[in-house]
Amino acid sequence: MTTDRVTTEAMLAVAVEEAELGAAEGGVPIGAALFGPGATVLGRGRNRRVQDDDPATHAETAAFRAAGRRPSYRDTIMVTTLSPCWYCSGLVRQFGIGEVIIGEAASFSGGHDWLADNGVRITVLDDARCAELMSEFITRRPDVWFEDIGEVR
Amino acid sequence: MTTDRVTTEAMLAVAVEEAELGAAEGGVPIGAALFGPGATVLGRGRNRRVQDDDPATHAETAAFRAAGRRPSYRDTIMVTTLSPCWYCSGLVRQFGIGEVIIGEAASFSGGHDWLADNGVRITVLDDARCAELMSEFITRRPDVWFEDIGEVR
Repeated sequence: MTTDRVTTEAMLAVAVEEAELGAAEGGVPIGAALFGPGATVLGRGRNRRVQDDDPATHAETAAFRAAGRRPSYRDTIMVTTLSPCWYCSGLVRQFGIGEVIIGEAASFSGGHDWLADNGVRITVLDDARCAELMSEFITRRPDVWFEDIGEVR
Repeated sequence: MTTDRVTTEAMLAVAVEEAELGAAEGGVPIGAALFGPGATVLGRGRNRRVQDDDPATHAETAAFRAAGRRPSYRDTIMVTTLSPCWYCSGLVRQFGIGEVIIGEAASFSGGHDWLADNGVRITVLDDARCAELMSEFITRRPDVWFEDIGEVR
């Protein structure tokens, strides 16, 4: 797997593009993409809670679904704009995804330390655009955001 | 929440029906249903790896999606024919589902102890029909089964 800085930024850009499409649709602005060897996009997607009224489609699960069936995900990299929640962290662990690259973990910190403890290679970036998308949304639609992470306020 | 024996068995029967529908379709025979107060079915579903060529729809995620958006899942019960994998255990933890009732955990043991450690009420049954559905499938289609749990053989 190649994770040099230029490649990492190019991969994150795909996830950010998904997050921005989600923002334009009025949705939770989190995007993700699953990459194979050589930084090939296997699948990409975004949170669809608002768009499809679907609580089960987070960005990472959308990207995973779009990537389709594989006998192994060991050589794949999940790139996501935000630290993966327990649901999405569980997806990564169960299917043996080898690496996760995270745009930012300041708005929300999910299960990435747990994944690291379980052998997944984790990179947490501090991407300003990812953080901006989240802070704008959390300020504007706190109800939808807390619903998305199952937090009762 | 009522979890007397008669109610538990009636709830499990809904999940088993889903698993049997999956078996009849040639799919991974795991079913689940999410119940609300009074043992009302909020949503039900089954693994759809084979039927839809979809690696992201496990029985529990299908039932959760079918139940739709809710501000809280604390008063809900996830009933599943098989111990939930990390992906589905992560779903339960993230969305604060209060209780999980499991048909059997002998064919596969997922994250239910982790859920119990995190405050989820867990009941593991030893249901013969649930176990029979799994053993028949694992014997006949080990390739699909190991793909479904991300195990490379």
